[in-house]
Amino acid sequence: MSLQRICYDCGARTTAPVARCDCGEPLWLDTDYGPFDWSDTTDEPGMWRFEALLPVSRPAGLAAAAGGTPLLSETPLDTFAGTNVHLKLEGEHPTGSFKDRGSALGLAAAEAGLAGDVDAVGTVSHGNMAMSTAAYAASTDLPCVVFVPDDIPPERLDVIAQFDPTVVRVAGDYGRLYEQTLEQGPDQGVVFLNSDVPLRVEGQKTTALEICASFAPDVPDALVMPVSSGGHASGAWKALRELEDAGAIDEIPALYFVQAAACSPIADAYDAGKDEVTRVTGGDTIAYSIANADPPSGTRALRAARDTGGAVVAVDDDAIRAARRALAVEAGVTVEPASATALAGTKQLVGRGLLDSSDEVAVVLTGTGLKEASSTGTPASASDDIQLASVEEYLTEFAGAIE
Amino acid sequence: MSLQRICYDCGARTTAPVARCDCGEPLWLDTDYGPFDWSDTTDEPGMWRFEALLPVSRPAGLAAAAGGTPLLSETPLDTFAGTNVHLKLEGEHPTGSFKDRGSALGLAAAEAGLAGDVDAVGTVSHGNMAMSTAAYAASTDLPCVVFVPDDIPPERLDVIAQFDPTVVRVAGDYGRLYEQTLEQGPDQGVVFLNSDVPLRVEGQKTTALEICASFAPDVPDALVMPVSSGGHASGAWKALRELEDAGAIDEIPALYFVQAAACSPIADAYDAGKDEVTRVTGGDTIAYSIANADPPSGTRALRAARDTGGAVVAVDDDAIRAARRALAVEAGVTVEPASATALAGTKQLVGRGLLDSSDEVAVVLTGTGLKEASSTGTPASASDDIQLASVEEYLTEFAGAIE
Ligand SMILES: [Zn+2]
Ligand SMILES: [Zn+2]
Repeated sequence: MSLQRICYDCGARTTAPVARCDCGEPLWLDTDYGPFDWSDTTDEPGMWRFEALLPVSRPAGLAAAAGGTPLLSETPLDTFAGTNVHLKLEGEHPTGSFKDRGSALGLAAAEAGLAGDVDAVGTVSHGNMAMSTAAYAASTDLPCVVFVPDDIPPERLDVIAQFDPTVVRVAGDYGRLYEQTLEQGPDQGVVFLNSDVPLRVEGQKTTALEICASFAPDVPDALVMPVSSGGHASGAWKALRELEDAGAIDEIPALYFVQAAACSPIADAYDAGKDEVTRVTGGDTIAYSIANADPPSGTRALRAARDTGGAVVAVDDDAIRAARRALAVEAGVTVEPASATALAGTKQLVGRGLLDSSDEVAVVLTGTGLKEASSTGTPASASDDIQLASVEEYLTEFAGAIE
Repeated sequence: MSLQRICYDCGARTTAPVARCDCGEPLWLDTDYGPFDWSDTTDEPGMWRFEALLPVSRPAGLAAAAGGTPLLSETPLDTFAGTNVHLKLEGEHPTGSFKDRGSALGLAAAEAGLAGDVDAVGTVSHGNMAMSTAAYAASTDLPCVVFVPDDIPPERLDVIAQFDPTVVRVAGDYGRLYEQTLEQGPDQGVVFLNSDVPLRVEGQKTTALEICASFAPDVPDALVMPVSSGGHASGAWKALRELEDAGAIDEIPALYFVQAAACSPIADAYDAGKDEVTRVTGGDTIAYSIANADPPSGTRALRAARDTGGAVVAVDDDAIRAARRALAVEAGVTVEPASATALAGTKQLVGRGLLDSSDEVAVVLTGTGLKEASSTGTPASASDDIQLASVEEYLTEFAGAIE
């Protein structure tokens, strides 16, 4: 059995386990979960309390630990951003990023026989998604194959390798590899959980579901998220549409997506008023994990922003660094640079008048800073050096200097 | 105002904001929260749903994100361990370890004026606790000073520095520094949240509270935890005593504590039938973050194990490596080596007949492996290298090899 898929754009349907419509746009699951209100959430852990809006119930294994991340409100960052920010801490996942939601759903569906005839799972990634897919597969009986670019740094390969997937370094165009695995996987019984496939998008819905549940019966004014492939953005859009269809929310929050200025094909298309996202030549950015020059669900993300009254913006590395430092120093939250774009983007949106100071804004911090905590850019030399015998004297001076 | 403290050993009480009894043993908070049953937990996030058993309610800021970690059951590790293990994923905290519970409680109490006259907070640590204290302090108005040994690796200093505390490298005996700050801090208005102080222990209670809540109305047969200073162990013991006093549990689960064999003063004292833990000369171990040769709450941890019908055991580095690998490969869970001791210890306890195959055992995985994910010992060279044109051929062979 396989779940029906539908094209958000042309409306074509298929039951084949494919990721792309004949029109070229990405498919997502064709779902109609029926009536839903907030009291229909269950006592299942994490994301599985929304089982009424998911195609599969909580499985055994690591998947039970996905979702259920904190939403931090009333932080000093309201001043930094100029509006009321609510930080969704997606780093609090077993592998440290939002990717775990999609991996959990994808593996659960594969194990439940909802993804066609599946002998193994796979993914194409060089970072968070590879680690996440390998970890969740490790907790099931399904083998896992991970395709990575051949120039991947060895230390990032080690991170993936700890879960013992089959790792394959591929020489050649990365975007082509991404699409080719989606085309060739099903015939071999390998379901590829790449970042914008229907099953992963279905799991990524739960970020927005949890945010909306936190505000219920109200709704936040906006969600601000980093965007790379467009998979997470698509999940948020699908979640909001389903909540509106089910009558659980009265109005749809605006979806704002943020890119790094050095590689911003979706923001470029938005600014140019185009209907389609096209490949760009991306430059270097500290937000490397969202630097996708040819996003497979870019056009869908663009549509999501326009359809909800949001926008797509780009922030430069200095703004990303400032936001990352503010998160650490003012809120105690460590994030990867790609995640800090969401806060930097929020600040920009306020500055441009697209958000205002009375708005309630959910800022999605997609991944932890723990994986690269030793490269935060704060110089270690900022320490004092003393002898044990001088501790009391030091403390006296330290306390005396506090106003 | 300051909370009353009591000595678990001689029963002496004081309202002074001190950490040690005149008898030399560590104090903990003298609390009587009155009747409690599981229906008295609230809707507050994370650890704060146990506010009925805590001296302070949820504050604003990062503290709201502490606790509420998943408990994973029915994993393939039951076979590895030889009993029914339930994995408490303490790595799912903002700074990646159980330390966040104590930091959250300590900062909340300091801000609420329950820790005496406080102008700043401090800690003595070279790892998880320093990072945790600095992060939670960053989200408050209190300055933070962190004393570290002068031989700390620069990359670990960077991790702490990102939250912008005052960092002081101290030359001299680390154990002496630990005690000296506790003695000298209060006079300077600096509350030191070292690992076994009353406020931190009070927060660390919530690990055991959450575990017991997950099993309610039943109780697990045992909790197995790594032990270092003895602070977390003390918190677990205090939690179980309070639950028993309040009538929320009928019997107390056995507390088993695990050390690395290269540095095992508490296990040594347990094996020798001694009543006190004394300093040892520790050797090197991959579980460096629990290698404490002179644990300040060692004797209290020893008492906790004996009093609850548990034990203290030691595991060697090979056993730690095997457990860490099993967690990753069979359950998809990445932990720091110190945390893997808990699973290695569980396996040993089953082998020695102290636990049996029908027991329900909560295994506390104290910290994430994400901070050192690139040093997991799995060689990156375990990858295949192909050209893009060969992907389909590779997939066919890969799928064909799956039995
Ligand atoms: Zn179409
Ligand atoms: Zn005493």
